[in-house]
Formats: sequence, structure tokens, C-alpha cells
Amino acid sequence: MAIVIIRQDQKIALWKNALLNADSSLKVYSYLEEHPKEEITMAVIWKHPAGSLKGYPNLKCIASAGAGVDYIFEDPTRPRHIPITRIVDPLLASDMSEHVLAVILAHIKNLNLYKQQQVANLWQPVEYTRIKDTTVGILGLGELGALTAKDLAKVGFKVQGWSRGRKTIDHVTTYAGKDELNVFLTSTQLLVCLLPLTPETEGFLNKSLLEQLPKGAYLINVARGGHLVDGDLLILLDNGHLSGACLDVYHKEPLPTAHPFWDHKKVHMTPHYASVSDTDSVVPQLIENYYRLENGEELKNKIDMDKGY
Amino acid sequence: MAIVIIRQDQKIALWKNALLNADSSLKVYSYLEEHPKEEITMAVIWKHPAGSLKGYPNLKCIASAGAGVDYIFEDPTRPRHIPITRIVDPLLASDMSEHVLAVILAHIKNLNLYKQQQVANLWQPVEYTRIKDTTVGILGLGELGALTAKDLAKVGFKVQGWSRGRKTIDHVTTYAGKDELNVFLTSTQLLVCLLPLTPETEGFLNKSLLEQLPKGAYLINVARGGHLVDGDLLILLDNGHLSGACLDVYHKEPLPTAHPFWDHKKVHMTPHYASVSDTDSVVPQLIENYYRLENGEELKNKIDMDKGY
Repeated sequence: MAIVIIRQDQKIALWKNALLNADSSLKVYSYLEEHPKEEITMAVIWKHPAGSLKGYPNLKCIASAGAGVDYIFEDPTRPRHIPITRIVDPLLASDMSEHVLAVILAHIKNLNLYKQQQVANLWQPVEYTRIKDTTVGILGLGELGALTAKDLAKVGFKVQGWSRGRKTIDHVTTYAGKDELNVFLTSTQLLVCLLPLTPETEGFLNKSLLEQLPKGAYLINVARGGHLVDGDLLILLDNGHLSGACLDVYHKEPLPTAHPFWDHKKVHMTPHYASVSDTDSVVPQLIENYYRLENGEELKNKIDMDKGY
Repeated sequence: MAIVIIRQDQKIALWKNALLNADSSLKVYSYLEEHPKEEITMAVIWKHPAGSLKGYPNLKCIASAGAGVDYIFEDPTRPRHIPITRIVDPLLASDMSEHVLAVILAHIKNLNLYKQQQVANLWQPVEYTRIKDTTVGILGLGELGALTAKDLAKVGFKVQGWSRGRKTIDHVTTYAGKDELNVFLTSTQLLVCLLPLTPETEGFLNKSLLEQLPKGAYLINVARGGHLVDGDLLILLDNGHLSGACLDVYHKEPLPTAHPFWDHKKVHMTPHYASVSDTDSVVPQLIENYYRLENGEELKNKIDMDKGY
């Protein structure tokens, strides 16, 4: 039994050390080093290169090192019979919630507008909006969406949420399914996308959906680039229907420098860093599942292969 | 008995209408129109022109239309025997608290840094700081400072406050007097100035005070421009001791375009609009004091002439 780490960023050593520091009896390999492929039972991965999951005859678990698993489904060569687990990390959810709160407040208090005015040597006070007068709509009420909704309600925002299936959250008005989407959208001033990315939600944030928001609404996409139809957003920013957008995720990351978002005054870009898996918080979950595999027990945080999340 | 409104912005008609809408039996004049000076018992003022309070023989109350009264003391020709009142407005305090929360979160989540990166076509994720790991220090624990401290503690920040005299606020560590200022400063990551401006606090935010903050600290001044020694702030931003500053108030407003703050990358300017008196919320207080004058009763929210606030 052994673990292989597969990811294309500079963090393989970080994760290997974190696993070994937590349990020195583990055998952990980088996929870039020589390693006994038949020993590998668990692959701990994040945006692996397509094809890199092949050739492990005894692989029993593909463990995503983040909350998302969409990138695994995008690899047509993945071994389809192997269960996939994901991270359900309270810190990942609370970091997301804090980021969303920061972005919402920066918008309603005009902080970016004032920075732009400063650069242009302009002194032009603009009415601010109070928290109690602001309705935030959260698309997707999974771990991240539900905590974000709860936290925003606690701070005093009017919060409503939409999800595929019905959910109940204290102090949050919830809507479910296609039939209730329009009512949800027409009463939302700031729309936060925290949906999982699946074939069903790909391109969900398109012109026909965003047009249902009231004039002057603001979009925050912290889920996946694939949710958004970039050109549709640009149309609605430029025709004045939307007042702006703060985006943390993109179809391609880093976003190619020629993309029109870079130069757009109404787009506030953050570099996919709203919420980042913290090794301290995530490693214990990975190790628990590793021993569950060894003992033939049910894996924790296994995704539903049909739903794709 | 009559009221005169004296202010140099474009809001005289707004305030006059708000007073008359609330009580149509009032007599309210703009200082710019012909008005019977001997009838005036109350002057409702905001940053009046020096000298404009003279010539009212029956004036009994100078009512500042905002929380601050420092500008009144700056007018050497003011009638010194007339009591001064100020606005104590729960909305003014909660608006301030929301603005400060927005500025703090924007800083710890690197939102302005990312906007600057975006303009420069850079994709450079930077570690964010969590709310629970952030210590905010509030200078001044009056109505605005105390509510801001409470609200920040509620959201999860570590909050400490400093004031001249000892105060007690739930979940906030409080320090008092000159002797405890250094301990307060050395443990503060984000310093928020909400002091009243008096001869004693003029230039309070100077090099020797700001140097006591830990390296990388951030300054938020939402009190008065006179608290800050601008050149000292620039020295500490440029030598890297402070990571940045968000300023809402300035020695002269609007800030002259030649001032170095306009072009400084580490300064985030907002145009004295963190918290603005709302006529709906303030007018009832003014009218109450007007009738207290008529009935010879004690005025509400009278300032202490010795303290200057």
C-alpha cells in the first residue's frame, strides 16, 4: 500500500512532507519520481495531467486534494471504476465565506470605484448601500454555499439561496429547482456562484440567466470558470445591465493575457485564491481514508459518480 | 424662534426640506437668503464659513449636523458662550462600522493588490489572512469606536481598543491612557483611528506612534485629517514599516490634486464618505433640541466645551 501525489503546480513536496509529518509510516511518492506502480492504492491529486492516472493496477481511491472534482471527469483516460473522494474542509468553507464577504462589502462600499477615482485624480463621493438593505443570492448550497449563506445572514445581509434540491438553512430564504430560479434571480442584488461544475451546470451563468437579475446587479463567481459564458457577461457589463463582476475562476488559469477581462473596468479579477486547501486541515482526512481502504471500510466524502459531485 | 442652516455644500435645500417635512410649523432659513437674524435661536451647521455664526443676537444653540464639532472650534469668531450639540446617530455609527469592516477585509483578502495586479496583467496569488488570526486595534472608544469594536469582535476578529479614559466592552481588550498605548500598539495589526479631533489628538498619528506598530501593519483613518501627520505616514509606507493605509479624511478636503497620497500605491483613498449623516435619522434629534430650547429644558448631546467633544 502506498500513496502517489499527482499535481502540476510546485506543491508536491509540500504535500508529501505534510503527509509524512502526520504519519511517518506512510509510503508516499511523487508521480515524477521512480515509484512502484503496483504498490499504489491511493492517488492524491489536484489538476493532474490527462493520462497520469493510468498504469496503477491496484489503485483503489482517487482522492482530490480540493473540494472540486470536475477536473477528474474532464480526463477521458481516468480509470472509471475507481471511487473518487473530495475534501470537505471546514477551513475551505470558512475561507470562502470570508472572501465572499470581503468582495460584497468592497462592492457596496464602493472601495474599488474609489481606487479607480484615486488613480484618475477624482473626488466623487457615491452613495453607499447598507448591509441590511442588501440582498445576496447564493447559487449552490453545498458545504461552501451553505456556510457562506449562514455567515452573511449573521452579519445582517438579506440572504437567499438556490439549489437543485430543496435545502433548509436558518435565516436564509431557499429556492429549489428550475421552476423557482426566476423568482430567486429577480430579487437578488449580488449573485454568488458556488455551484459544483457538472455537465448540467456548465455555462449556467449565461445571458438568459444573468438578464433575470435586476438592473445594476453584481456577479461574484468563486466556483469554476466553466460556469460562466464569458462573452455573455461582457455583453451585460457593457450594456449596463450588470454593475460589475468579481471573478476568482476562469476557463483557463492563469487567464491568458489577451482575454478582455484583464482590461475591463467593471471586472475585478482575483487569481483563483479565494480559498485554498490547507495541508494541516486536509491531511488528516486523506490519512483516514487511506486506513479505511486498508481495513476495507467505506470511504469518507466519496462523490456520487452520477451527479459528478 | 427660528432655525438657520449654514453649510457650504449643495445640501442646504435638502436639510431645509427634511426639517419642514418633519414639522411644518418650524421656521427654517438658509443663511444665503434674507432672514430675520434676531429671530434665529438655533443654527444647524456643517463646516460653516468662518464668521458666519456672528450677528445672531438671540442664538442659543449651535447644532452640528454631524458627529464631529472640531470645525466649530477652528473658527476663532464663533460666539463662545453658546452651547454646541452634535449628532449621536446609531446609523452614523453602524455605517462607520460597516465601512471599517469592508476596508479591513479588502486588505486581509488582498482585493486592492489583486486589482493592481490585474491592471498590470499579473497573476500572482498571495497568502490571505483569516479573520480569526487578525488583531484590529481601535483608537477611540466613543459611540463610533465602541460599536465598530463590538461589530468586529462579533464577526470573529481579535479586537482591542484604546481610549483616554478606561472603557469596558464585551469581547474587546481595552487599554487606557498614555501608559498603556505602547502595549496596545505593538500587538495591533490593523489600526483604526476613531478619535475625536481636539488640540490633544491633533497629529496623534505621527512617526513615533506609528513606528510602535509591528512591521507590516495597516492604518485606517476614518476620524479627521488633522489626526495624521501626512509626511510621517509617507516615510513609514516608503521604508516598508507599514504595508498600507486607507484614508477617508484629509487636512484639506477635497484633497488637493498635488498631494502625494493621490499617486501612492500603498494609499487607498476614499472621499470622506465612510459614514454620512442621514437626514431621516438626524432631523428628529435636531427638532427635539429645538423644542427643548423653546421650553428651557437641557439640550441633548451637548458637547463638553473643555474636552472639545
